Amino acid sequence: MGGSMAMLFAEHGLQVSVYDVADKNIDSLTERLNDPTSGLTPDLHQRVAGFKDLSQFMHSLGGKDTDKLLVFSIPHGSAADKVISEIRPHLSRGDIILDGGNEWYENAQRRQRELAPDGIAYLSMGVSGGYQSARRGPSISPSGDKDAVERVMPLLQQFAAKDAKSGKACVANLGPAGCGHYVKMVHNGIEQGILGVVNEAWELLYKCLHTDLDTIAHIFRKWEEEGELKRNFLVGIGADICGRPKENGERGHVVNEVQDKVVQDADDSEGTGIWSVMEAAKRHVSAPTIASAHFFRITSADRAQRMEVVEALGESIGAARKQHLESKARTEFIEDLRLAVYCATLASFAQGLNLIARASADEGWNVNLAECMQIWREGCIIRSEHIADVLQPALEASPGVTNVLSLEALAEEIKRTVPYLRKVVQDGLEWNAHMPALSASLEYFKYCGGKHLPSQFMEAELDYFGAHSYDLKSEGDGEVKKGKHHFEWKPA
Amino acid sequence: MGGSMAMLFAEHGLQVSVYDVADKNIDSLTERLNDPTSGLTPDLHQRVAGFKDLSQFMHSLGGKDTDKLLVFSIPHGSAADKVISEIRPHLSRGDIILDGGNEWYENAQRRQRELAPDGIAYLSMGVSGGYQSARRGPSISPSGDKDAVERVMPLLQQFAAKDAKSGKACVANLGPAGCGHYVKMVHNGIEQGILGVVNEAWELLYKCLHTDLDTIAHIFRKWEEEGELKRNFLVGIGADICGRPKENGERGHVVNEVQDKVVQDADDSEGTGIWSVMEAAKRHVSAPTIASAHFFRITSADRAQRMEVVEALGESIGAARKQHLESKARTEFIEDLRLAVYCATLASFAQGLNLIARASADEGWNVNLAECMQIWREGCIIRSEHIADVLQPALEASPGVTNVLSLEALAEEIKRTVPYLRKVVQDGLEWNAHMPALSASLEYFKYCGGKHLPSQFMEAELDYFGAHSYDLKSEGDGEVKKGKHHFEWKPA
Repeated sequence: MGGSMAMLFAEHGLQVSVYDVADKNIDSLTERLNDPTSGLTPDLHQRVAGFKDLSQFMHSLGGKDTDKLLVFSIPHGSAADKVISEIRPHLSRGDIILDGGNEWYENAQRRQRELAPDGIAYLSMGVSGGYQSARRGPSISPSGDKDAVERVMPLLQQFAAKDAKSGKACVANLGPAGCGHYVKMVHNGIEQGILGVVNEAWELLYKCLHTDLDTIAHIFRKWEEEGELKRNFLVGIGADICGRPKENGERGHVVNEVQDKVVQDADDSEGTGIWSVMEAAKRHVSAPTIASAHFFRITSADRAQRMEVVEALGESIGAARKQHLESKARTEFIEDLRLAVYCATLASFAQGLNLIARASADEGWNVNLAECMQIWREGCIIRSEHIADVLQPALEASPGVTNVLSLEALAEEIKRTVPYLRKVVQDGLEWNAHMPALSASLEYFKYCGGKHLPSQFMEAELDYFGAHSYDLKSEGDGEVKKGKHHFEWKPA
Repeated sequence: MGGSMAMLFAEHGLQVSVYDVADKNIDSLTERLNDPTSGLTPDLHQRVAGFKDLSQFMHSLGGKDTDKLLVFSIPHGSAADKVISEIRPHLSRGDIILDGGNEWYENAQRRQRELAPDGIAYLSMGVSGGYQSARRGPSISPSGDKDAVERVMPLLQQFAAKDAKSGKACVANLGPAGCGHYVKMVHNGIEQGILGVVNEAWELLYKCLHTDLDTIAHIFRKWEEEGELKRNFLVGIGADICGRPKENGERGHVVNEVQDKVVQDADDSEGTGIWSVMEAAKRHVSAPTIASAHFFRITSADRAQRMEVVEALGESIGAARKQHLESKARTEFIEDLRLAVYCATLASFAQGLNLIARASADEGWNVNLAECMQIWREGCIIRSEHIADVLQPALEASPGVTNVLSLEALAEEIKRTVPYLRKVVQDGLEWNAHMPALSASLEYFKYCGGKHLPSQFMEAELDYFGAHSYDLKSEGDGEVKKGKHHFEWKPA
């Protein structure tokens, strides 16, 4: 990511110095810059200098008293703290650190507090889009000291992704320190939900309907071309993946060589998916699509342990079953599936946006949700043009909304497509497909839209043993606080 | 809870002093002790003294230099810290604080560290069973300084619940500071999952099958009497609740007056359900039954906001539909439902035990899971005799197990009953019942027992944009760390 961003900055005319703790990363960057076949602008190597020594690197930026802009692309937590302590002696008033890592927002707030007294601005800068976007133009969510953000904004606007329709850059000043990283964390939470949903769709097509991978590539491509899933990034790259044959003339597809485990949460190299679930729980925001997708992938990580469970449980409980559908039914199912994926993707967006709204209210950030949708319009992993077209205007028209499910434009889309989600979950159950995220999304809509929930019984149970007290139905909706009535179901 | 425990201690022959920051709680305790119609042992009031003044209370314990045992029943967090700082001047070497609140385990660890240098033992003491059990004999999970735990253990064994079959007390020294509170937190997480499951069963019976409440009381009573749900506490009190008519000769049932909202997570009066979800995410333990039940009840809390969503989404998405089943089909469904509730309850237990196992390994607590099952045999909210009979011997035979789903005795029960869970989820989908916990439990078993998960596709997607790398299927299960292969799906 760092090297890609460096080249992008240089292409925009900046003189860039690059430092990495791993010498080999500097070597490979230098090699690439000097490779005449790389396709890079010929003189780009003159504007990017790699450094293996930190002092030389800092010196190349003009020395202590020059205003410096430092861009971090460093793993979260102690790694970034270590770098800050190392460069600290070289920093002075007016310097700006743009932390583009997936950082925990409280670490970002702490660094901002620590550096501010010396006039050094530490800015949270969520960067999304993966390494291709880092190279071509990512989606960026900066936040921090207002003046400092304004100083770097012209630069960020240059190198951020642009929305093709409006030409507008996918970047905005989101608010005070930390909230840029928070919004990026939630972006990754939403991504996790969508990844789960698309993954489940893939299994239904591949394992249940035995659709060959090239045909799935074609289906995903069509989905991504128009309609509800238009320019949905994760569907689009799914088409690329399914259509990718092995190299060197070998038969088969690359995806079929990949082991069925996702380890980046379990090995703690990535924190955002974990934090999203923790934050949803902590801030009392329901996020079952995101959480269920998370728990699925966490379980996939330790394959050796999973095989011990398979040994005990037998293989049939967890095996998706092959189906034979007639051509018409098959075509219908695929269309149902497309709308089910859309509907569950809306669930993931709704949960993420509600989490940002809650955190923003709790922390006094005043994050503009419509701006988040603008940032996510292009260059990022949750890019989904149709969904942005639905949500952005609705959010612009309702600033301060606390639960986006009450937005009519979104609700209309859910109402229209929830029947397809239900149908797909029913089919998938019949076929024993894995559907943690699809089914959790359906349940989410059912209880969010439940005028009468069975929780009257749960509340009575809690009152029975815990004297938790309840409100009466006759008293109306009531407040979100302990009720006034206790029934002595069983005296102590 | 505090008053109930005080009376229980006094009945066991102790002289008890009670202090409460709220004078009215002392007044009502004193009133009850002096009420000749209370049914209490006549001389009990001579062994319980209530205090409204902290100094007098501390003095009543014998003064600074007497060894004192203080039992806390205080809300988590700052409330308990405040009390400690107030009583601190009255404490001396040899004193023991037994914190019986639902405390966050790190607060417990901190207090233990702060008090230990002065020879004051702070012990974590999970207490479960609600106020009835606090009065008659709760389930207790103490931990902390070994000598101090051993000093209080004879007392705890006296007043803890007793397993009727073995006569053994439901208490054990679980390990170092904090882990007793951790185990109680997980108990409440498991409770949350079971509450969700039983609640969903209630809706299926009441709202879908239109079973009258007295009949549901009878069904739940039968379930609780024998078989897989034998002495399942939450099923048993469900029978009591459904069978409870309004008082004063009014028509109808008390439960039908209760508003459908559970607020105790949202208003932060209870932390354990929230922490359980956060801990599962943080420690990479899949806990979807617990999390989905949590997100359901969180959503129920803010009824006014929910009505705005219902307004936008319409009422039909979230309305369980009434069904008419013929007598035989109805009887069959009810039996399926019983086994589905059992199967999903096993999911909740498995997730909780796996979380304790992981935390214990992470923190070096060496918690004995079989002892947890012994503690939960009686007196607590997750009491479920048949499940304890399945799990306790299996855990005794496999100390150090990291994923309880690989225990054959548990796996056999899951295999046998998962078909009923699947069938109930299918029926419930058809009837549009709310089933977040039932359906999440089914998905959990499907992916935990999945020999081949669709996550190969997810892993390929992550590698596509993030260069996350993967293992090859041909390399076997591999380790839980970043794979060795990256495919350049789309050059930057």
